[in-house]
Amino acid sequence: METSPRPAIVTTIADLRWAVGAARKDQKRIGFVPTMGALHEGHLSLVRASQAECQYTVVSIYVNPAQFGPKEDFARYPRTLQADLEKLAGVGADLAFCPSDAEVYPVGFSTWVEVEGVAEPLEGQCRPGHFRGVATVVLKLLNMVQPDVAYFGQKDYQQALVIRRMVADLNVPVEVRVCPTVREPDGLAMSSRNSYLSPQGRQKALVLWKSLQLAAELVRQAERDAATIIARMRQTILTVEDAQIDYIALVDPETLAPVEKITAPVLAALAIRIEGTRLIDNCLLEP
Amino acid sequence: METSPRPAIVTTIADLRWAVGAARKDQKRIGFVPTMGALHEGHLSLVRASQAECQYTVVSIYVNPAQFGPKEDFARYPRTLQADLEKLAGVGADLAFCPSDAEVYPVGFSTWVEVEGVAEPLEGQCRPGHFRGVATVVLKLLNMVQPDVAYFGQKDYQQALVIRRMVADLNVPVEVRVCPTVREPDGLAMSSRNSYLSPQGRQKALVLWKSLQLAAELVRQAERDAATIIARMRQTILTVEDAQIDYIALVDPETLAPVEKITAPVLAALAIRIEGTRLIDNCLLEP
Repeated sequence: METSPRPAIVTTIADLRWAVGAARKDQKRIGFVPTMGALHEGHLSLVRASQAECQYTVVSIYVNPAQFGPKEDFARYPRTLQADLEKLAGVGADLAFCPSDAEVYPVGFSTWVEVEGVAEPLEGQCRPGHFRGVATVVLKLLNMVQPDVAYFGQKDYQQALVIRRMVADLNVPVEVRVCPTVREPDGLAMSSRNSYLSPQGRQKALVLWKSLQLAAELVRQAERDAATIIARMRQTILTVEDAQIDYIALVDPETLAPVEKITAPVLAALAIRIEGTRLIDNCLLEP
Repeated sequence: METSPRPAIVTTIADLRWAVGAARKDQKRIGFVPTMGALHEGHLSLVRASQAECQYTVVSIYVNPAQFGPKEDFARYPRTLQADLEKLAGVGADLAFCPSDAEVYPVGFSTWVEVEGVAEPLEGQCRPGHFRGVATVVLKLLNMVQPDVAYFGQKDYQQALVIRRMVADLNVPVEVRVCPTVREPDGLAMSSRNSYLSPQGRQKALVLWKSLQLAAELVRQAERDAATIIARMRQTILTVEDAQIDYIALVDPETLAPVEKITAPVLAALAIRIEGTRLIDNCLLEP
């Protein structure tokens, strides 16, 4: 008897539901990792987290046009399907769902999920419509797969909060897990967009992590004034020629409201453009 | 052994899921009828439709504040829980879900479902935010109950279209059925809001159905000009002293776009205020 190759690959919702339905009938717990492909160790850590508590892991690979602004990088976003499938085979994911745009957004599509509150500051302010696109496609994917558990990375901290909010508010029957950011040995947060950087840009990009480490160190040294910490982070970022700051913020980890005095854990979050590539990172600061 | 009384009544999502989960484990097909209570034969026809193809029927009774405008009748909307439960017992519904506002919209709630296109004209124009509230609560209820089939009445024709659109667009795993409008012997469409009418108003309200019948008759007589038909319907409505017209429209039954020449089935739809009570009705006209 042959074993089927892993991952099995499906491109239609009907085939996806058939495959997941069969696994569910076998009493398997279904884990789901939604991705836009260009997979790196961050994504693979989510697949491993799923495998640790589920018997069947579905990974979607879909570059969602609805979450890109008109002037953003949708057209040039890295698409590396063959390499992605090999990586998924390497970690033993069970099913790859690779739908077309027509399968996800057929003609006549006209329903959107809007999250207020946590979706509004930071990325929400810099990228109008971004979280509408994210919330909508994630809800669609959750309804297509109907997993028991879905996995997201802390690197996209605000996205994870928006999805938690949506899942709670809309009573979606799924457990949401948020897994730690995976970093390169030198500290750079893994991101599919790192591939846009030149070797020099790649070096410059280290400044995000450096400024987050500085913030953590200042808090360890009992600095409690957010404005002071943000000013020091800004100084650090601006040591890099041509770095552009979208935001540097210290916020409440649950509400994302700005914090002035640090009396409880706060989230340091930043979005910086290096060589025109927009990079984000974040870190929890514990006083 | 005692049989449990029917319907069983639950007020929390946890108890709802427990009861429905037990029915699902018994391989029962789950039917769901969402209502705002003040049940009449229209609602009961949906329960019967569910019972004809499902082995377990859930009816929700919840007056959804999010679908009422600030100047609408949320506060005075009829609430007749005991009578409703007796009616559900009479038809043998299995489970009544009667949640509190805090259960449906806990503190911090901030996610909304927006349907564009079919939600915009007619009721959408007269009642801004109405369909946002409807789509959001129906998606929530569908996620709470996770039925195989959900039942809606054709009396709220546009609502049914909005829900079909949302279910398709968001890939909600449920079948949507739309059942015929149930009418009083004299033709008045059953509506919980009919109870607002005085005996005189109740008589006046017949003019909605009369004008729809006139439209059907004109089409039978080969009238193909929508403006002519609408003018005759308007004349009929205005025979009633103090009737106020929100809209009278002949529209495409799928898109709700206005129709000028009748060459295919069209939907005649109207919203009329009688004694300040807003009544809607509709009818498919087939040339």
